[in-house]
Amino acid sequence: MYRTHNCGELSRKDIGKKVILSGWIQKIRDLGSLFFIDIRDYFGITQLIISKKSVKKNFFLGKEFLIKVKGKVVERLSKNYNIPTGEIEILVSHIDLLNSSLSPPFTIENQTDGNEEMRMIYRYLDIRRNPIKNNLIIRHNLALETRNFLSKNGFLEIETPVLINDTPEGARSFVVPSRTHIDKFYALAQSPQLFKQLLMIGGIDKYFQIVKCFRDEDSRSDRQIEFTQIDCEMSFVEVHDVLVFFEHFIKHIFKKIKNIQLDPFPCISHSDAIKIYGTDSPDIRFGMPIIELNDLVQRKNINFLKTQELVIGIKIKKCHNLHDKMSFFFKKIENPNFFWIKYLYDQTLLSSHSNFLNDEILKIFVKFFEAIPGDLLFVSYGKERKTREELGKIRIKIADILNLKNSKKFTPLWIKDLPILEWEEKYKKYKSVHHPFTSPKEEDLHFLEKNPKNVRSKSYDLIINGIEIGSGSIRIHNKHIQNLIFKHLGFSKKEIESRFGFFMKAFEYSVPPHGGIAFGLDRLVNLLEGNQNIKDFIAFPKNNYGKDIMINAPSFLEKEKLKELHFR
Amino acid sequence: MYRTHNCGELSRKDIGKKVILSGWIQKIRDLGSLFFIDIRDYFGITQLIISKKSVKKNFFLGKEFLIKVKGKVVERLSKNYNIPTGEIEILVSHIDLLNSSLSPPFTIENQTDGNEEMRMIYRYLDIRRNPIKNNLIIRHNLALETRNFLSKNGFLEIETPVLINDTPEGARSFVVPSRTHIDKFYALAQSPQLFKQLLMIGGIDKYFQIVKCFRDEDSRSDRQIEFTQIDCEMSFVEVHDVLVFFEHFIKHIFKKIKNIQLDPFPCISHSDAIKIYGTDSPDIRFGMPIIELNDLVQRKNINFLKTQELVIGIKIKKCHNLHDKMSFFFKKIENPNFFWIKYLYDQTLLSSHSNFLNDEILKIFVKFFEAIPGDLLFVSYGKERKTREELGKIRIKIADILNLKNSKKFTPLWIKDLPILEWEEKYKKYKSVHHPFTSPKEEDLHFLEKNPKNVRSKSYDLIINGIEIGSGSIRIHNKHIQNLIFKHLGFSKKEIESRFGFFMKAFEYSVPPHGGIAFGLDRLVNLLEGNQNIKDFIAFPKNNYGKDIMINAPSFLEKEKLKELHFR
Repeated sequence: MYRTHNCGELSRKDIGKKVILSGWIQKIRDLGSLFFIDIRDYFGITQLIISKKSVKKNFFLGKEFLIKVKGKVVERLSKNYNIPTGEIEILVSHIDLLNSSLSPPFTIENQTDGNEEMRMIYRYLDIRRNPIKNNLIIRHNLALETRNFLSKNGFLEIETPVLINDTPEGARSFVVPSRTHIDKFYALAQSPQLFKQLLMIGGIDKYFQIVKCFRDEDSRSDRQIEFTQIDCEMSFVEVHDVLVFFEHFIKHIFKKIKNIQLDPFPCISHSDAIKIYGTDSPDIRFGMPIIELNDLVQRKNINFLKTQELVIGIKIKKCHNLHDKMSFFFKKIENPNFFWIKYLYDQTLLSSHSNFLNDEILKIFVKFFEAIPGDLLFVSYGKERKTREELGKIRIKIADILNLKNSKKFTPLWIKDLPILEWEEKYKKYKSVHHPFTSPKEEDLHFLEKNPKNVRSKSYDLIINGIEIGSGSIRIHNKHIQNLIFKHLGFSKKEIESRFGFFMKAFEYSVPPHGGIAFGLDRLVNLLEGNQNIKDFIAFPKNNYGKDIMINAPSFLEKEKLKELHFR
Repeated sequence: MYRTHNCGELSRKDIGKKVILSGWIQKIRDLGSLFFIDIRDYFGITQLIISKKSVKKNFFLGKEFLIKVKGKVVERLSKNYNIPTGEIEILVSHIDLLNSSLSPPFTIENQTDGNEEMRMIYRYLDIRRNPIKNNLIIRHNLALETRNFLSKNGFLEIETPVLINDTPEGARSFVVPSRTHIDKFYALAQSPQLFKQLLMIGGIDKYFQIVKCFRDEDSRSDRQIEFTQIDCEMSFVEVHDVLVFFEHFIKHIFKKIKNIQLDPFPCISHSDAIKIYGTDSPDIRFGMPIIELNDLVQRKNINFLKTQELVIGIKIKKCHNLHDKMSFFFKKIENPNFFWIKYLYDQTLLSSHSNFLNDEILKIFVKFFEAIPGDLLFVSYGKERKTREELGKIRIKIADILNLKNSKKFTPLWIKDLPILEWEEKYKKYKSVHHPFTSPKEEDLHFLEKNPKNVRSKSYDLIINGIEIGSGSIRIHNKHIQNLIFKHLGFSKKEIESRFGFFMKAFEYSVPPHGGIAFGLDRLVNLLEGNQNIKDFIAFPKNNYGKDIMINAPSFLEKEKLKELHFR
């Protein structure tokens, strides 16, 4: 028997008991005739007292050695009230060495001196540290709570296949050569999209799956080539039904996992998001909306601005004490099409463009922005799209500089009505903004044939603190519309048949109206814990180049195996 | 709005309500001025009455058309008490056609006329049938119950990577070429074996995962190339702890899912299983153990048998009326090394070998077997291994013929102490019976260096009704033993380093004693439902050749993509 108790459960009420514990040595203090040793397991830490007399000569113990001890629970003299076992210690009568350890390559403490690479190579040692262990526990709780909540609400978890065919979903697929079907390949599913739609066609009313997905991404620090999705689909629903239910879901998760009661989720259109925040994934924790200034500029006839396609600005409140920081930041902005106005506490107005901007103009802006002394105004101008995007990014950077992103605050927001198609100038063709199965909005259907880029879709993204946590849509359930979208995307009849033949065949058998959403599980758990490094929430992550540096994958294949696969 | 209620929930208490329902047409009866239509959704079937007057001319409805109706709930004249909605019907005031359907290629009823191939091609239509839908529901319930039970018992579900390196686990791995790491490949995980062990090394006390695994199997009717495992591992345990806990788990599952209280699981050694049942996965629903006859044959000096390496037999109880069936079966047995003895109700003794077996000998057997009139004895002889295996198979066939396999009865059994290694004459080397990480039994350790085939392992299989449902072992946690096993398996030092270097490195950091088990989820749910076709429990199964015949995967790859992967 390795233990009667674990290292986290003994307390004052156990004093006098004879126990057996096993654990890794966290700390050794040599007090001459005695050792004080802290042993650690999954559950906690317990202090041992070992008399040197009871230990054989040359019996060496070091950090991370694994020992089993028998002894008696006694009251501790100097109590540690920070840990559950801090009022007791074990008077050890017998000690067994279960396994010895090399000195670990980094300290196994809450704060470690290991760099990311070392921590990934020795991931099993990193997992011994509380922060990583706790992340895995929270991830487990999140997944379990998700499953129970969705199941209680009538969703069935159904496994869809991983080994499928390549479908165009915006990213590259990994492929898997078949040994028995020569020259043929499977593709690893990028998502269960088509299969969950087939389940709806199969009459399954509500589906979900917490599922591994695979994308052959180029290296990016926040993307993993295998990642986990909470994938959901419902029949007989419209946008409203999906948003209401999944707002309920996200609120439930935050309440259960973080004990946070979220406010109702605002919902704005994609075009408004771009207009107000310069991005399709706005962080709304800190206000600072973008103000449209074109009208003002025309009305007040402000010369050097009125010929600009777009003039917009933001007001940075109570920024007076931070002017130096801001000036430093402004100097680094590459595009020169901006100016700032500082409204000092003594009511002086300073600006970056004093040659163009006289006091009268400055006052116009101050009034329009309803600025008060201490505020700072930032105005950008130029081509519409670029100016909005840039100001959106500047808004975020300002929030970083001014420390406006409260990591304890969570502000979800639905973005809906994304355009259905986007013109790719590079390839001279349309691509789907969401994916090719997204339904157009009824009121825009008349544009679909001739002017598809004006068509909005029944799509929605869930953004929390500026991060896209979920994305979904109502799907097309009409075969003519589905065919038209494929055509707009540049697929020939033959390609539609070869890629989606099975799917279009299913459209002959009464597809129900349906829609769904998918949440990024890795991102969601990371967000819940304050948006750190996503790798810290994955037990065995790949690095930014898709490599598992612990096991050294991918790796070369034996010749024999290559031959079996009919390569070379 | 598509519905106020679903098609399974309206009952007597809803009479008078105005409702909206959507569903697929299951049945149409034309009664002249009226249609009676049954519509179906996930939840059930509701009968509609539609006056022909309320329907436009040329409005055609057919089976599997999807309609939305508004109407009033009224009491039904001819009630159907077999379904929850059987006391009401809907008097339809308005009908919308949501989608039309071709005539389905097979009947969408509990009993279908579709063959397996058609049902797989049109899997989404097959899922509309209750038997398949219900299988998916049971699978969902089983997975959810498993997760909740294991979580309540302190197990953490942790996702391990799918894209790893090839490790030798008895089957071939699928490989995935890397686009960015030229000429390198990932392998799809055959199981999370090494990663779950690394989690134990990482101090995670109890792990589980319901996880897709991938094996590049040659075609076999009961194997899928992607399948799902309930994978579990615990630290600081011995064989006994694992068996006790997972007996508890399996009992819980049977109680929850089937409301069946299982008896305590017997546990026998692998060698006893072979001896008593002629197989390592015995079906013990029907007794009929194999009786050893060598001693008897020697003692009684039965001439033509006493030179045989092995003489064994079974007693088939109360077989009198089935003698014809049995004789027909005996005639088909190819190996002639057997005889039977019929003990008729009138106490006559008949045998197949009356030339060798005189009445005196027959009586010796009857007495030894404690046979009573009506019983049939079957005796086999020859080389030990072959004779045992064959009688094991004959025992199962007899149970089939005599209908002794009660599909309502579930008799689990643990088989333990499998040999650690098995000599493969073909390759002139050892292979692991379980896998290379299985711990030898302490009491056999002295054989390990010189006589490894005599070493039993700390392994165990869970057999229910003759089907292997789970398999596991206590793992090696000592690096010298692990190295020795690798050596016995024929790995050179270099190979150990290249294949298992990362794992052996982890052995330097105090591996805890640990062990676990994995259950086949597909098999378990299939068993619970009476062991039918495993494909009926997988939403989108592959066929016996690893093909998804619905989507036609695997398939040829575009040249562009091949080029990207540096092939050809």
